Order: sequence, then C-alpha cells, then structure tokens
Amino acid sequence: MDKLFFMNDYGEGAHPRVMQRLMDTNMEHSCGYGMDDYSLCAQALIREKCGQPQAAVHFLAGGTSANMIALAAFMRPYEAAVAAEGGHINVHETGAVEGSGHKVLVAQSREGKVTSEGVRAVCAHHTDEHMVRPRVLYISQSTEIGTVYTLSELRALRAACDDCGLVLFVDGARLGSALTSRGCDVMLPDLAALADAFTIGGTKNGLLYGEAMVIVNPALQGDFRYMIKNRGGMMAKGRICGLMFLTAMEDDSYFEWARHANRMADLVREGLARGGVPLVQQTQTNQIFPIVTREQLAQLEERVAFERWGELPDGRWAIRFVTSWATSEADARALAAMLEAL
Amino acid sequence: MDKLFFMNDYGEGAHPRVMQRLMDTNMEHSCGYGMDDYSLCAQALIREKCGQPQAAVHFLAGGTSANMIALAAFMRPYEAAVAAEGGHINVHETGAVEGSGHKVLVAQSREGKVTSEGVRAVCAHHTDEHMVRPRVLYISQSTEIGTVYTLSELRALRAACDDCGLVLFVDGARLGSALTSRGCDVMLPDLAALADAFTIGGTKNGLLYGEAMVIVNPALQGDFRYMIKNRGGMMAKGRICGLMFLTAMEDDSYFEWARHANRMADLVREGLARGGVPLVQQTQTNQIFPIVTREQLAQLEERVAFERWGELPDGRWAIRFVTSWATSEADARALAAMLEAL
Amino acid sequence: MDKLFFMNDYGEGAHPRVMQRLMDTNMEHSCGYGMDDYSLCAQALIREKCGQPQAAVHFLAGGTSANMIALAAFMRPYEAAVAAEGGHINVHETGAVEGSGHKVLVAQSREGKVTSEGVRAVCAHHTDEHMVRPRVLYISQSTEIGTVYTLSELRALRAACDDCGLVLFVDGARLGSALTSRGCDVMLPDLAALADAFTIGGTKNGLLYGEAMVIVNPALQGDFRYMIKNRGGMMAKGRICGLMFLTAMEDDSYFEWARHANRMADLVREGLARGGVPLVQQTQTNQIFPIVTREQLAQLEERVAFERWGELPDGRWAIRFVTSWATSEADARALAAMLEAL
Amino acid sequence: MDKLFFMNDYGEGAHPRVMQRLMDTNMEHSCGYGMDDYSLCAQALIREKCGQPQAAVHFLAGGTSANMIALAAFMRPYEAAVAAEGGHINVHETGAVEGSGHKVLVAQSREGKVTSEGVRAVCAHHTDEHMVRPRVLYISQSTEIGTVYTLSELRALRAACDDCGLVLFVDGARLGSALTSRGCDVMLPDLAALADAFTIGGTKNGLLYGEAMVIVNPALQGDFRYMIKNRGGMMAKGRICGLMFLTAMEDDSYFEWARHANRMADLVREGLARGGVPLVQQTQTNQIFPIVTREQLAQLEERVAFERWGELPDGRWAIRFVTSWATSEADARALAAMLEAL
Repeated sequence: MDKLFFMNDYGEGAHPRVMQRLMDTNMEHSCGYGMDDYSLCAQALIREKCGQPQAAVHFLAGGTSANMIALAAFMRPYEAAVAAEGGHINVHETGAVEGSGHKVLVAQSREGKVTSEGVRAVCAHHTDEHMVRPRVLYISQSTEIGTVYTLSELRALRAACDDCGLVLFVDGARLGSALTSRGCDVMLPDLAALADAFTIGGTKNGLLYGEAMVIVNPALQGDFRYMIKNRGGMMAKGRICGLMFLTAMEDDSYFEWARHANRMADLVREGLARGGVPLVQQTQTNQIFPIVTREQLAQLEERVAFERWGELPDGRWAIRFVTSWATSEADARALAAMLEAL
Repeated sequence: MDKLFFMNDYGEGAHPRVMQRLMDTNMEHSCGYGMDDYSLCAQALIREKCGQPQAAVHFLAGGTSANMIALAAFMRPYEAAVAAEGGHINVHETGAVEGSGHKVLVAQSREGKVTSEGVRAVCAHHTDEHMVRPRVLYISQSTEIGTVYTLSELRALRAACDDCGLVLFVDGARLGSALTSRGCDVMLPDLAALADAFTIGGTKNGLLYGEAMVIVNPALQGDFRYMIKNRGGMMAKGRICGLMFLTAMEDDSYFEWARHANRMADLVREGLARGGVPLVQQTQTNQIFPIVTREQLAQLEERVAFERWGELPDGRWAIRFVTSWATSEADARALAAMLEAL
Repeated sequence: MDKLFFMNDYGEGAHPRVMQRLMDTNMEHSCGYGMDDYSLCAQALIREKCGQPQAAVHFLAGGTSANMIALAAFMRPYEAAVAAEGGHINVHETGAVEGSGHKVLVAQSREGKVTSEGVRAVCAHHTDEHMVRPRVLYISQSTEIGTVYTLSELRALRAACDDCGLVLFVDGARLGSALTSRGCDVMLPDLAALADAFTIGGTKNGLLYGEAMVIVNPALQGDFRYMIKNRGGMMAKGRICGLMFLTAMEDDSYFEWARHANRMADLVREGLARGGVPLVQQTQTNQIFPIVTREQLAQLEERVAFERWGELPDGRWAIRFVTSWATSEADARALAAMLEAL
Repeated sequence: MDKLFFMNDYGEGAHPRVMQRLMDTNMEHSCGYGMDDYSLCAQALIREKCGQPQAAVHFLAGGTSANMIALAAFMRPYEAAVAAEGGHINVHETGAVEGSGHKVLVAQSREGKVTSEGVRAVCAHHTDEHMVRPRVLYISQSTEIGTVYTLSELRALRAACDDCGLVLFVDGARLGSALTSRGCDVMLPDLAALADAFTIGGTKNGLLYGEAMVIVNPALQGDFRYMIKNRGGMMAKGRICGLMFLTAMEDDSYFEWARHANRMADLVREGLARGGVPLVQQTQTNQIFPIVTREQLAQLEERVAFERWGELPDGRWAIRFVTSWATSEADARALAAMLEAL
C-alpha cells in the first residue's frame, strides 16, 4: 500500500481544471513573453479581484525568483530587507536576496510573525551611511510556520512601514490557505490595500508552477519587465502561466482549492486533538507541526510521507504535515484516525 | 481567416505527447525540487543519449536563467565570457550575465558563428589583472541567425579553448533544429564530447518550458544545485520538467519534432527560392531570414504572423519566419505558395 | 645613469606643496570619514571653481573606485553605460562596472572620442526589455589616447544625452591636462554646466591619491555616501584627501601643475616633430604616442623609461611617453634631443 | 582650550616617521600598482615577521575594501561568511559583503568574540542547497568592543574551521593594539599560523591609510590582484602604501606605536578605576567603554572629544574613549584625572 502523502503542497501536478484548460488551448498560437491575451486577461482579473485597477501584475516561475526580483527592483544597492529570523528569504533561498546585493535584517517576531515594534527597532538602529538602510519589510502570509497575520497586525505593520519609509512586501506563496483559514479576517482586497506589493502563490495551490506578482504602489511599478528579464525570470511561453492563473482566479477556484486544503488540515488537526498530540504551534492553515516521540515517529513513517522538522532537546521530534487541493478526504480521515490512535 | 503563424517556435503549448504524459501522471505524488523519479530517469536517459555517463544534468525553467546560472557557476568575479557580437547573452538577455558580475567580450564571428581565430585574438589581448580574464566561450547551436557550427568548426573552437584555458559552453535553445538540419555533421554525442557544458532546449522544441543543462566536465559540476537555488532557478515541482524531458528524449521524439520543424522550413525555403526572394543568410534550420520590399512586407503581414527583423539601408526589410513541431504542412505549403507568388 | 622617466604620471609621490601641507597639519585632530573641516572647505572650493553652488562633492581613493561607485549609484540593475571601445571602464578596470551588475555598451568613436551619432545609434538599437537600457554616457576628458573633447563636441553629446535620457558622466582622471591643453576651449565651469557628474583626478596630477567626484545633477546626489561605503570607498582619514584637494585647488595649483605637464609634453612633441617621428594620434595633452622602429625602440629603452603601447602589423611599435607635474624641463629637453636624433 | 581628543584612532595624519619617509622619497620614480620596490620590500618583510615565507601580501586602501575583496575572493556566490552579531562586516560596512553577493551569518559570541561552539552550530544548521553554505569565519582581533582572542580561543576556532570546512579570516584593523595588549598570548607568527588570511591594519595605527592583506593559505592566493582591481581597490601610486608599511614594520615600529596606544589606554583605565566608573566591558586594548550618568556625560563632553556608544535602558550612557600612537601622555593623564574626579 502506498503511503499517505502529507509531505508538501507541491507533490502532484496541477488541479484537473488547470490541466484541462491547458489541453483545450494547447494548439492555439500566441505571442510570447507574457504579452498574450490569456496573460492580459488574468492580469485584469487579478486587478479586479484585488480592487486595485492600477496595480501591475506579472507572472513569475517560482517563489525564490519572485522574491529576489521584487526585492532587487524595490531597493538601491545599500538598502536592506527586514524579515523574521525564520523568514523564507533569510533561511531557505540560498542567499538569493544577498546574491542581488542586499542584506536581510532580522526583526523580532512572535509565532513566526514580524512585530511592528520589531520593525521600528531595526529602523531606529540603522541611522547613518555606515550601516545599510532598511527599505523593504518582507513578511509571508501565511508564515513559514503556518500562522496568519490578522488585519490589525497588518495595519500595525503598515503604520510602521509608513513611519519608517519602508515598502511592505508580502510573500503569498501560501496566500490562498492564509486568506481562507478559519479566523482569518483579511480578504484579498484588504491585503492589496495594505501592501505595496505581494505575490499570489500558484505552485502550492493547484498550478504546475507560477506566482503572480501584484505591485500596487505605482512608484514601484516602473521597468519591472526589465528587472524580470535581467534576473532570468521571463518565460518565453508566458501564456502558460497566464492561462493557469486565469483558470484559478475565475469563479474563485483559487480560494476554493485553498479552502479544501484547510478543511483537510482541520480533519488532521481534529485527529491530533483527539489523540492528545502536542503541537509546536497552533495553526489554522494547511501546515501542521505536531510533536511526536521517537516511537511515534517510526510508526508514522511506515505509513505516511511527511517531513521531519527538527529534533527537540528532549529527543522528541517536531514533524510537519501539509495538505493541499490534492489531498483526498479519505486520506485526511485515515491520517486523523492514525493520529488519534498514536 | 486566421493568419498563418510563423512568428516563433514558442507560440503554442506543448507537443500533444507531452501534454498526455502530464495528464496521465498528474495525480501521482512525488518529492520536490527535481529529486523525483521522473527527473532522475530523464537525467539518466540524457546522459546515455550523450554518451557521457558521468555528466551532471539539471533542468531549468528558461534559457536566460540557464545561461546566467551556468556562467555564474563557471566563473570567478573577474572572469568574462566570450561571445559573438549578436550572441544571445550579449544582446537579448537584458544584461543577465553582467547582472551576475561578468563582462561579455565580443569575438569576431562569420555567419553568426564565432571563429577560433576570433577567440584566440580576444584571449591574446587580455594579458593582465587590469583587464578581465576570458574564461568561458559561449556559442549557440544553432546561432541567433539560424546557422550551424560544423564538426570541424567545433573542433577548432575546442582547440582554441584548450589553448586559452577557456570553458566551452553551448547554448542549445535550438539544439534540436541544429542537430537535425540538412548537412549538419554534429551528433549529440559529438557535441557532448567537445563541450564542457551545454543546454538541450525544450521551450522551443515541444515542451511547456525547460532547458536541460548538461555539464560534462566534472570540474564544473560541483555545487550546481546551490547555484540554481541562489539565482532563483529551482522549481518546487521539478518533476514537471523532468517528465517533459523524459517524454521528449524517449524514442528520440525530441529530434523527430525538430526534424519536422526543419522540413517545414525547407518547404518555406523552396517557396522563397522559386519566388526568387533574397535571404539575409542561408540557413538549414527552423529560422529563415528573407529580404522583402515594403510592398511585399505589407502584403505578407495581412496573411502571415512573423517578425520584422530590421530595416535595411535601401528601405527593404529583413523579416524572420520560424517553424516548429507545431507547424502544419498545410501552413508551410500555403506560405511557400504565397512567397513563390510575391 | 638613471633612465629618463616618461613612464606614467603617477610615478612619484605628491607635489611638494601637498606634502608640505600634510606635514604642517599632521598632528591636528579631526573627525573621520570626510566630515572634517579640510574636506568641507575643499568641497566648497570645488563647487565655487565649478560655478555650481549646489553640486555635491565627494573624495574617493582612485579612479576605478570612483567610476564603479558613480555608475552603480546612477543606474538600476538593467541599465547600461555607453562608452568608447577603448574607454577605461570597458578595457582597463577588470570588469568593475560589470562587477556592479551593469553592461558597458560600445558606441562609435573617432580619435578616442565618442560621437553623438554613435550615442544615438546605440540608444536607437536598445528598444525594449529584452535588451539593457542605456543610461549613462561615460567619456574621459582627456581620453585614453590623450585627445580632448571640444566644447562643441561636449554640447553635441549633451544634446544626445538629453534626447536619449542619458546621464553624462565624465571621467576626469587627466582633467587637468585636458583643460589646460593648447586649443582646448573647455573651462571647468563649462564642463560642470554640461556634465551631470564628473571627476577631477588627483592621482595623476600631484596628489598622493584621490579623485574628486562632482555630482552636479541634484537628482543623482542622493545617498551617495551610502554608495561609497557599500563599495568599500570610504576612507577613515578622509581629511587627507580633502586637504590634498584643498591645496591643489587653492590658487589654481591644480591647473598650474597640469599646464607644466603639458608644456613638458610640448617639448617632447617638438623633438618628435624635428626628428620626423610619426605619431599614432596627434595630442596636446600629457600623453604622446609615437611610432618607432624596432631599432629605435631598443635604443630608446636603454635610456628612457616608457611604455610599449602595442606592436603594429608592420613590425614597428607604438609607444607612450607621459609627462607630469614632476617632469623636469631638463629631462623633457633631453628626451626631445634624443628623439630629434633618432 | 582645545578638547582632549579620545574620539578615535584615525583623527590625525601619520606617525612622523612615516611622514618623514614619504618626504625623503617623494621625488623618486617608480612603477605603479604596487609592483614597485618599496611594496615588494614591505611584502617580504611582512612575510618574514609572520614566519610565512610563502604568504601572499597585498596593500589595500581601507578596511571595508579589504574585507569585501577578501571575502569575495574566498567564496563562491552561494557561500556565506560567519561573524559575531556585532562584527564589523555585519553592522558597519553598509552591506559591502552582501553587495558582493554573500550572506553574513551570525554565530553566538561572548564578550564580542565568536565561540567555536557558535561556529559549529551555524554550520550544523546549514545542511543543503536550500540554504547558503558557510565558508568563511570572520573575526576581528581586537574585536569591535576591544576584547582580544587568546591563543587557545583561536586554536578552538581553527579546529572548528577545519572540521566545518571554513576559511579563517581575521580582520586586523586594530591588530597592533590586540597583539601588544596586556595578557595577550598571541604573537604575529601565531596568528599567521592559525589564520588562512588576515589583515594588518595601518589606518588606525600610524599610517595615512592602508591595510596589509596577508594570505597564508596558498589555495586562496590565486588571482587576488584581479579581484582587487575588479573591486576598485588597486591604487596607482601603490608605492605610498608599500613605503608606509615598510616604515611601520622595520624595527617593529608598528608594535611600538600600538603599545604606546595601549599604555595611554591603561592610564585612562586607571583613572576610571580610581573614580569607580563602571565599564560595559573590560578591555586591555586601545578602546575603553565606560558607563556614565547624563550629568557626567555633559561634564565630559565639555572638555573631551569622544563618542557616545549608546544609551542604556536606565538612562545612563555607554561612551567610548580611544587612544592611539598620537595620544600624548599629558592628555591621557589629564583625562584620567578628570575621570577619577567624576
């Protein structure tokens, strides 16, 4: 029997609706580099969904590429990004931001979320030309550990950014799961109104690949296509990504798929609760971080594919389950039952 | 009536066999970042087809990304690439190589092909630490203007590289068309034996996207995945690209598709010959560069989608027709007939 | 007997007046990083001499450092500098500009001087985001081969820059010699009125080291000290450079020293003329490029220190004599006599 | 009355012996770019003093320039430096290391000194190509806060570097003060035997400017002059720096000057002790960090030039006194008396 798959949210191809759309249009001709009609439509639709008719929208192949291109576009060489210690750009992008010449400064965070006081403290500390100048606040919605910024938290960060002269950039690799999570009071137009720029992640929510970069602030929009090409991010068959995002955003499929992932995660969370399994961190999104004993770890690894997150000082293990649009209810219930019986 | 499409070789989706394969495997689970079985199989198959069991193979999203990552991996900061004046990295990548910190030096070329004397002259001119050090010879097979290096030309470049301490890197964005073109005496194993590294282009020959980077020289293989990630080139769903290349390389479909593109181009060339239309440059690959009068240009543009390449001093225009795996014989014959009657 | 020294214009220490000033003030205390009173005075004096009360002035250690910092400050990552093929940044700075991520585009030049038509042609060729965007026109006054832009040539370049959206940057490593050369109709205020930014070279005209960066265009002045520090160009004992420039600019010593160098070069030129020795290029500045036979070369090398510039196809050699503030009239006359008798 | 100057160790010109030497040789001719006899002699002398006949020695203009060039030379793009949180490259170089594309990772430190366990922990955490690879351990001797690594601490760091595959680089901007400080058991040859590369700082110990880069490890020596030029660090009049280092290293003047600075600091420390003024951190080098009340701060600032280091939560201030070769015993005693009477 195959293992249950809770390893990640990019383990399958694309949502069947996306695949069908690619099949249906496969032999149509179009011009390249994202200037085709599908891409233009998808951009218009995203602007509309965001309530930002003047926003610039670009489709990029992956998250690291999107982050590094945006941060390089938004900063001068001596300017720095501010992020949580565990922020993706700070830890898991192999120095791509530094590779573009920019320092990543660490601000205090709680539950994976940068605090506005943390942002202010970093800016207060960087006072003259012997130090980098903080310029972009980078946050992820949801965060690396599955938590979600509330509307009031985002507003506080926005205020800090305004006071300190920072651009607010939101990495939305898992934006769908965040915005559709239980208790999240942030809607897409809220995010678009508060952020200077953000991404809508496709790779982890039903597309073959792709992140939509939404640049709301007009001052940051100029020459972005030059920047994309300069950093190797421009795809010749741009229409593929445009078409996939069009499919995802029509009828709000994007959010439906994310909601499904969250529901499957809820089933798993219920199993954990019933089994009394402790968690590293409470989450409502599609990532769950239980703590298990060595014996439980071995037992689970026989039947479930998941990731070891890290060993704790007491010998137990933090592990990670991830659900997605592709997780079946049967699998989620099977895992829940297994966890209940641990 | 729709225009005949001879605009480029990336105007459609993927070859139907590729799409079918993606559909068939869509809901399978796999690990990410190109460590999945499809990617591993595709790598093994490419190594075998190249006759290079020790080669390292990586799948990258696009041509500019592949070029900039390879050149950054192969050079120290003060080292430079050598290319033809019209070379893709020198003109059409928005300074991506320079964006990684490296100068592109221009060597003499004939018919779009760098000459070995040109390479030697550039190296002879760069003698000390007040100038960059030439380190990589970058060529394209086929070239920007559709010409093809012969085996003896490649051997002469290899010898120049050996004498001058250069790495030979071949941009194979249109490698299929080059290797299957009439009169080309270079086979894939020949190229693999002569180059230190090269790409096998998928985007322009039947895939949704993707270039296979083949690093033959073991001294250049180390840490390449770090470099990919550092430059934003690593795809989470790596399996998509692996699977597409597996499909293309099995049964040599890749070359079959390219041969088809060349045959369609031959039909167009025959029409041009019958019509007495002059060419900028004789080619045997899937790019054709006729010269037309303003009147002919206007006439053609009503019925055919193609690219204006540049206005000549005498007021005529160089234009470009491109064929691909997706060009139908009916369309090619229709264009040929039109050209014959110009 | 020591050889006559015509090797370069940086072969000695500093002009005795500069040394004396350093001695006189050596034990004074001052704050660091160029915020001291000498630096401030020197900046004010340069602004005054330039007739540009709003210009920003910074002191940098060397020419390559100054060029790379200015160009990095003035450009976005996908923007490029335009220069003569033999321009210093294009040939003799080991890719420092590319090391900051920027391509150097070559424009047509005549007698070492970029032509305004050349600039326009480069800009006309770079039309979209698949190519770099030309942004800075880099020229040297005097040029690499000792020629000097006239006022009308500079005005034509300024007009081209205005039409094409380029910044005009003038590398003044040998500005003193250029502006005091016979027939030069450009004065310092003319240059300052036409250029967006330029350097006043100290290293090659009497200082121990140092280039004054004058940024006339207010739009380019912001954050320049951040940029200097970010590229390793900020000197802790900034006062040294400030004091040296103060000494040089007071009483126009800077121009007096340069005029001396030109006069010494004139003596040498007269010797060459009398001896009928051909030149690679007519110059009026402190660099002279005679063409000599192999026999003459050997004969000269026994008694004179100078640089071989390059072998000509006919076996003769282009050589370079350079004069400076430190060249004695006796030496210049001795060399002239030797050349007359060649 | 002038204030007593304890602001920094780069507030005057050069040691009179250095100035005299520059005067004496001022009109000698020499070739450029550090290939002159004085530079060669100084390099040989430094190799001898270090007990490393194979070491490569280069003279660079400043500390940030030296650090950024060395780290760029020693690393591939995806590699990172490890430093103390307060390390100069991490805080006070305006992102120059990141400007070369490299991340700076923070390791645990005690009293400003990186611990070997801290280094091991950082390396253990960076395991695969999704994270940067630690490659250089950067430490300062003395540290930013005036503390000094003991021989056994350096040996422990060396062992950690060996185990983790790190290069050990020591920033010696204040090396003289460190090696001559009371209780320091590290001699120059010890440092040279333990470090892969290090600098001997001239700017803060008697020279007009300049840092000597000593590269002991032959594997790191290659092409360093290319790297210097590529980053704008090569001085045309290289002889000036060579001559200054020659003067400093002959008769061990360098250490004599540093020892003087430390003795002056000891006088100040004795005053602080007698006055019962608390310290942020015990030091034996030329930097002293007392803690004073607001009233004491105001009182001191009337008569002494020094730096405010930072306000403490309780409203008191940490301040910094720095001594140098130029500090007179009279001034040191005057400050000590003042502190005693605070």
